Amino acid sequence: MKRTHHCGQLTTAHIGETVTLNGWVQTRRDLGGVLFIDLRDRSGIVQVVFNPAYSGDALKIADRVRSEYVIAVTGKVVKRDAETINPNLPTGEIEVQITEIEVLNAAKTPPFFIEDGVEVDESLRLKYRYLDLRRPEMQKTLMLRSKAAKVFRDFLDGEGFMEVETPILTKSTPEGARDYLVPSRVHEGEFFALPQSPQIFKQLLMVGGVERYYQIARCFRDEDLRADRQPEFTQVDIETSFLTQDDLMSMMEQLMVRLFRETIGVELATPFQRITYADAMGKYGSDKPDLRFGLELIEVNDIVANSGVKVFSSVIEKGGEVKVLNAKGCGTWSRKEIDDLGPYAARYGAKGLAWIQVKDGEFKGPIVKFFTEQEIEALKERTGAEEGDLLLFSADHKKVVADVLGALRLKIGKQLGLIDESQFKFAWVVDFPLLGYDEEQKRYVAEHHPFTRPKDEDVALFDTDPGQIKAQAYDLVLNGYEVGGGSMRIYKRDVQEKMFAALGLSPEEAYEKFGFLLDAFEYGTPPHGGIAFGFDRLVMLLAGRTNLRETIAFPKTASATDLLMDAPSEVDPSQLEQLHIKLALKAAAGDKK
Amino acid sequence: MKRTHHCGQLTTAHIGETVTLNGWVQTRRDLGGVLFIDLRDRSGIVQVVFNPAYSGDALKIADRVRSEYVIAVTGKVVKRDAETINPNLPTGEIEVQITEIEVLNAAKTPPFFIEDGVEVDESLRLKYRYLDLRRPEMQKTLMLRSKAAKVFRDFLDGEGFMEVETPILTKSTPEGARDYLVPSRVHEGEFFALPQSPQIFKQLLMVGGVERYYQIARCFRDEDLRADRQPEFTQVDIETSFLTQDDLMSMMEQLMVRLFRETIGVELATPFQRITYADAMGKYGSDKPDLRFGLELIEVNDIVANSGVKVFSSVIEKGGEVKVLNAKGCGTWSRKEIDDLGPYAARYGAKGLAWIQVKDGEFKGPIVKFFTEQEIEALKERTGAEEGDLLLFSADHKKVVADVLGALRLKIGKQLGLIDESQFKFAWVVDFPLLGYDEEQKRYVAEHHPFTRPKDEDVALFDTDPGQIKAQAYDLVLNGYEVGGGSMRIYKRDVQEKMFAALGLSPEEAYEKFGFLLDAFEYGTPPHGGIAFGFDRLVMLLAGRTNLRETIAFPKTASATDLLMDAPSEVDPSQLEQLHIKLALKAAAGDKK
Repeated sequence: MKRTHHCGQLTTAHIGETVTLNGWVQTRRDLGGVLFIDLRDRSGIVQVVFNPAYSGDALKIADRVRSEYVIAVTGKVVKRDAETINPNLPTGEIEVQITEIEVLNAAKTPPFFIEDGVEVDESLRLKYRYLDLRRPEMQKTLMLRSKAAKVFRDFLDGEGFMEVETPILTKSTPEGARDYLVPSRVHEGEFFALPQSPQIFKQLLMVGGVERYYQIARCFRDEDLRADRQPEFTQVDIETSFLTQDDLMSMMEQLMVRLFRETIGVELATPFQRITYADAMGKYGSDKPDLRFGLELIEVNDIVANSGVKVFSSVIEKGGEVKVLNAKGCGTWSRKEIDDLGPYAARYGAKGLAWIQVKDGEFKGPIVKFFTEQEIEALKERTGAEEGDLLLFSADHKKVVADVLGALRLKIGKQLGLIDESQFKFAWVVDFPLLGYDEEQKRYVAEHHPFTRPKDEDVALFDTDPGQIKAQAYDLVLNGYEVGGGSMRIYKRDVQEKMFAALGLSPEEAYEKFGFLLDAFEYGTPPHGGIAFGFDRLVMLLAGRTNLRETIAFPKTASATDLLMDAPSEVDPSQLEQLHIKLALKAAAGDKK
Repeated sequence: MKRTHHCGQLTTAHIGETVTLNGWVQTRRDLGGVLFIDLRDRSGIVQVVFNPAYSGDALKIADRVRSEYVIAVTGKVVKRDAETINPNLPTGEIEVQITEIEVLNAAKTPPFFIEDGVEVDESLRLKYRYLDLRRPEMQKTLMLRSKAAKVFRDFLDGEGFMEVETPILTKSTPEGARDYLVPSRVHEGEFFALPQSPQIFKQLLMVGGVERYYQIARCFRDEDLRADRQPEFTQVDIETSFLTQDDLMSMMEQLMVRLFRETIGVELATPFQRITYADAMGKYGSDKPDLRFGLELIEVNDIVANSGVKVFSSVIEKGGEVKVLNAKGCGTWSRKEIDDLGPYAARYGAKGLAWIQVKDGEFKGPIVKFFTEQEIEALKERTGAEEGDLLLFSADHKKVVADVLGALRLKIGKQLGLIDESQFKFAWVVDFPLLGYDEEQKRYVAEHHPFTRPKDEDVALFDTDPGQIKAQAYDLVLNGYEVGGGSMRIYKRDVQEKMFAALGLSPEEAYEKFGFLLDAFEYGTPPHGGIAFGFDRLVMLLAGRTNLRETIAFPKTASATDLLMDAPSEVDPSQLEQLHIKLALKAAAGDKK
């Protein structure tokens, strides 16, 4: 019984046709000797009917099938009676009158229903992932992911990019996150490492004259996982030669336009907004601002510096800052509601949270009394405070103020319904600092990596004020998520030397760490730069999900476990012996399960 | 100086245009104050000219550049004088008169010339892979590989396949080749394994209702490497539900047609030849026969069984066989030439190599005297032996005879120039045995894997003669290489149980080894099957190369070493400590370099 059609394809156009379908039994209902089966395949669901009037033996066989049985059926497509039309089903106007059935396979009752929005513990879904994947929303997400990959490839192919595969068994890198290691059997005592990204390889490909490279690449980081991280993840890795930062950014905007158009039918406007790192941190308290709403942070140093609020004046004296978030309309909140923001702010480093309510035409709150009338007026003007507003103050180091008010901005934005969930608000964050000062190590460290190119006009600052150098680095943010990031790379030897010097690396140390790459750079390296997109995260946003695991066929849990395969797991001691390693367990053997 | 054109694109159509090019200096010649530079980018080479008449300062700057410098130049495209036209260069009819130049980067003299067919040790090429990749033939191969991947994806996408990524960090499997292991930091004493193939995942995806899956997947095998193996390799992995073996094979033929058409412009005829495993072994001594030439093996058991050649009769008595290869035209070889075949045959297990020359109208050679006249006549007729032929005999177990004569067939076919190197001769090898008998373990073992489906009509043989069961398995061979292989999978519980019983596995043992897959199979598994193509090897054949490493951007050597990255390498002891392992070296510390 060879399939002629897919379940979800059938429409009134097929009425009168004899069709053969293959699929899974979604539900089976017996209405007085007439059997109705909702048959499901990848394309959707259609109702098939077994009736003594035309089904003959098929009815008897159908009587034995249960949910999730795999069957093949043949029958005629007919229009449903008007009163039985199901407007919730794309195929709801028709049904198939079955004359033949074959049970291809039986099924046990699954541990949860195969339907969308199923309320079941995620760990059960992961253990039975092969059943979870049957649910229409998972199928849809997997298809979306496949489609998204195709659009990336088609676009990049059209722009002359070569897809090049780079090694998974490679070398441990001295910096960055923790590496996964792979013991070598052939080379006793030596290890491969799984790549955190193909960064070095893609730069070598530029040295190799590939000019335009891409790869949808698996990357690995052995980090303690946060909710939105996976130990192995996928990035769309891109590198180009001879392009400027603006060239590359424009091209990537067109890539996003096509991606959103062809996967979810959304038209993006270009060019994307560009916002400097300083502005993003200043206005939104984040280097990945959610720009779907305003609620900007407002600096009030000059106004409060000499006020009676000691915390404010002393913070400013020490070089910190005071900023205000005007939570429009929250002035009516109860004292308790306002106080509840305190512990939330504390999670982001706030030592306290001062506030002022505008109520009955007046500023109210514990700190109001420490301000002069002029200061109150100035605050009112600067913050645009009106009746019913709530001003939230943060006073601390710049970083803490940004973290605290950035987090409050998001929380209050959501709470007030300021976020239009249907919007996709892209922006480029640019002009990142090249170097950050590490107080512990008492030296500069690379904010991105030591091959990030400084802005041409800032190179002279290496000799005077390295902390002020801006990088030719750019992040692509979308609705508060970083979905891509990249930079132009240093390709000139003199600039690279200045960079290493700024990082406090002697030429010898630099060579020890990055020797073969520095060697490569000696042989005619073109100007180059690139970007990497977080593919899992982009798919998550395209699919309108909030959990990365929903976008991955076989994800790992937050403790880096594969519940389906039961990995990692213990292995045979002989395997370890061949790899020239042995276990060095901290727990005594008896403590182990 | 923004690039307007690529070097290799320029033709007489561009004459008169002002163009800006970016690229590498291939060569630089000074002809009496006029400088000629062959400028190279990914697209090809073009000649650019610096002349005091129009180049101004650019000439002075150009005078300083050397091979592999990266430059940007602007100038006017002009027709070359008739006598300076270079017919070997696609751009040979024009040149570019340069008015502006910028040196983007300098270059040291590379350790070998950046040109095709460079005669240099491969290990040097691998160490400086970033220079090796600049050579046009490597660029061409990388482009071909990228294009081939695109054709695979486009075809499969058109057929409704979903691309699904499966995990790299997964579980060690009890059978197959050696696994690469990855110690878990989070789960003390436990290990991930890198997948030898996504076999289990793709079957789970079928259980999951994906119906059509593909992935261009990285696979890993920790084997002692032969010349044509890499520790990590790429396969195009495919699995389908509800298709028959014939459906799948036809579809894959169309895939190959499109691949060869769109990458190298070769039109393949379909359907591909189908040859049973028994015929392939019988006629060609190989399950991956090179069908570009005949030279078939000829069975002569009946003729020689009672001859005076004791080796022959005793081999046949013990159930072995005697076969002949008629090396047409080799009857004129000297005794030494013939004797030299002996050691070659011995490599494949031959204990000796009997032969007969047809010379001066007669059978000649040491064994001729042991045959009767009738036997000689029968041999002549069976083998078609004519004047000038050489009959080579192998008498042994079937397997040894196949190996020996199969190898001799290839050697002599090449030597006699019987192989048309321009041909692409595809064939499906089908009807593989499902089980092989392992003499050591005294039990049957799965020839493919324990989920390979037997032919429907052979299932009854489980109870009577399991060794005779044929599998629904198929290999795709091309010019003597296996380029793909797959099977339909068992999806019915009763068949799976028979299979495990035939393998001598109790239900408990089976469950211990394949538990979660057997669990999955209980919940409504559709009929399914698939195939995997060796992508590296296919690209090698498309590119007309004979070395897999030429098709991989960053390959490993035969000792599984990356010479460029110096991987594997020693790691920091603290890394091992975090992973709960320590070294267990056999060599004393002092013995190490």
